[in-house]
Amino acid sequence: KRHFHLLAKRMKPLIGTIIFEGFELLDTYGPLELFLIIPDLFESVVLGKSTGEVKSSQGPRGVAEQSMQDVDRVDILLIPGGFGTRALVEDEAFLKDLKRLAATAEYVCSVCTGAGVLAKAGILDGKNATTNKAAWTWPTSQGEKVNWLPEARWVEDGNYFTSSGVSAGMDMALGLIERIHGRETSLEVAKAAEYTWHEDRDVDPFARIHGLV
Amino acid sequence: KRHFHLLAKRMKPLIGTIIFEGFELLDTYGPLELFLIIPDLFESVVLGKSTGEVKSSQGPRGVAEQSMQDVDRVDILLIPGGFGTRALVEDEAFLKDLKRLAATAEYVCSVCTGAGVLAKAGILDGKNATTNKAAWTWPTSQGEKVNWLPEARWVEDGNYFTSSGVSAGMDMALGLIERIHGRETSLEVAKAAEYTWHEDRDVDPFARIHGLV
Repeated sequence: KRHFHLLAKRMKPLIGTIIFEGFELLDTYGPLELFLIIPDLFESVVLGKSTGEVKSSQGPRGVAEQSMQDVDRVDILLIPGGFGTRALVEDEAFLKDLKRLAATAEYVCSVCTGAGVLAKAGILDGKNATTNKAAWTWPTSQGEKVNWLPEARWVEDGNYFTSSGVSAGMDMALGLIERIHGRETSLEVAKAAEYTWHEDRDVDPFARIHGLV
Repeated sequence: KRHFHLLAKRMKPLIGTIIFEGFELLDTYGPLELFLIIPDLFESVVLGKSTGEVKSSQGPRGVAEQSMQDVDRVDILLIPGGFGTRALVEDEAFLKDLKRLAATAEYVCSVCTGAGVLAKAGILDGKNATTNKAAWTWPTSQGEKVNWLPEARWVEDGNYFTSSGVSAGMDMALGLIERIHGRETSLEVAKAAEYTWHEDRDVDPFARIHGLV
């Protein structure tokens, strides 16, 4: 992993966000809002199995700007959750592309049940990680070699960032912005979005609500 | 206004969300996530000046499923903010369509600078409303007959719901879900999204942060 090479080169890190049939809206566009609300912090490309419109789990459609196969590398790989993850873990071609892109990325991130897909691809083997608290059983069953942490808003293990369910992806995004651009920038981003950052990643009221602790 | 006719008829309220070149991602997909995460509470249609892909203020594209002109009515009209609002207030055809749809809707809602567009169309005349706290001057200058409230996470004036900036739209959405489906449903939705609802709409730390109070 090439730590901090981006900052050394003063380039904008390229975020590759993968969307797929049945992706979760807020898992995806919450983090993207925060990464992109202040210009010049990041570049973005939205990736899909192919280019074009992709229906979310909630119905509204997003757009994949490039196909995963056509992309050589990204700096940050982000995979959201959503009910579509259940089909992704059976899709060998998708998992192969995911694994290839993850190997090129400086940071690999998931929101919600997206961690189940990373786990199935073996990307989280030996790592600490978390996932959705309401749907805990399914994603955690996708990776027996992952050290799943049930009480965490998000988990950072080296350059692997995994968040709890849906809205937790925004708190994780601010954590990644802090890692790359510093705490002051994260606070500026949260202020611009009028968002109250749940800054302590170990505080997770939903673990208790969903009976995991 | 036909209060509560939807519940009386046991129909699912249809949310019409308007997107436009330069719409804000989280203003749009944050509320839609919450309205739609629990099935069978609402129906959704994403509207545009025409159908097809629409580029957000942040770059990623959404999809307008129907053109505003082709829609007779919606139950809930939602307009997000984003830098594209600056062009919308000069677009007479758009404002006319907006006014027509707002007149058919049981609830009219805006997030962030979307309130400036409602104000310019005269839809908020004589109403209490709020908008983005960082960009306060621009949207409030679009409607001199609006009673702009500088310290509010969101404002409800009858069936007009207007929120503060970006992430505040999610808190407003939960307020509207409470109004239509009751408080217990709002809390269930927040729990499903692992979202901590800022339930008191009069508590607005960003009014002070941005020097408005």
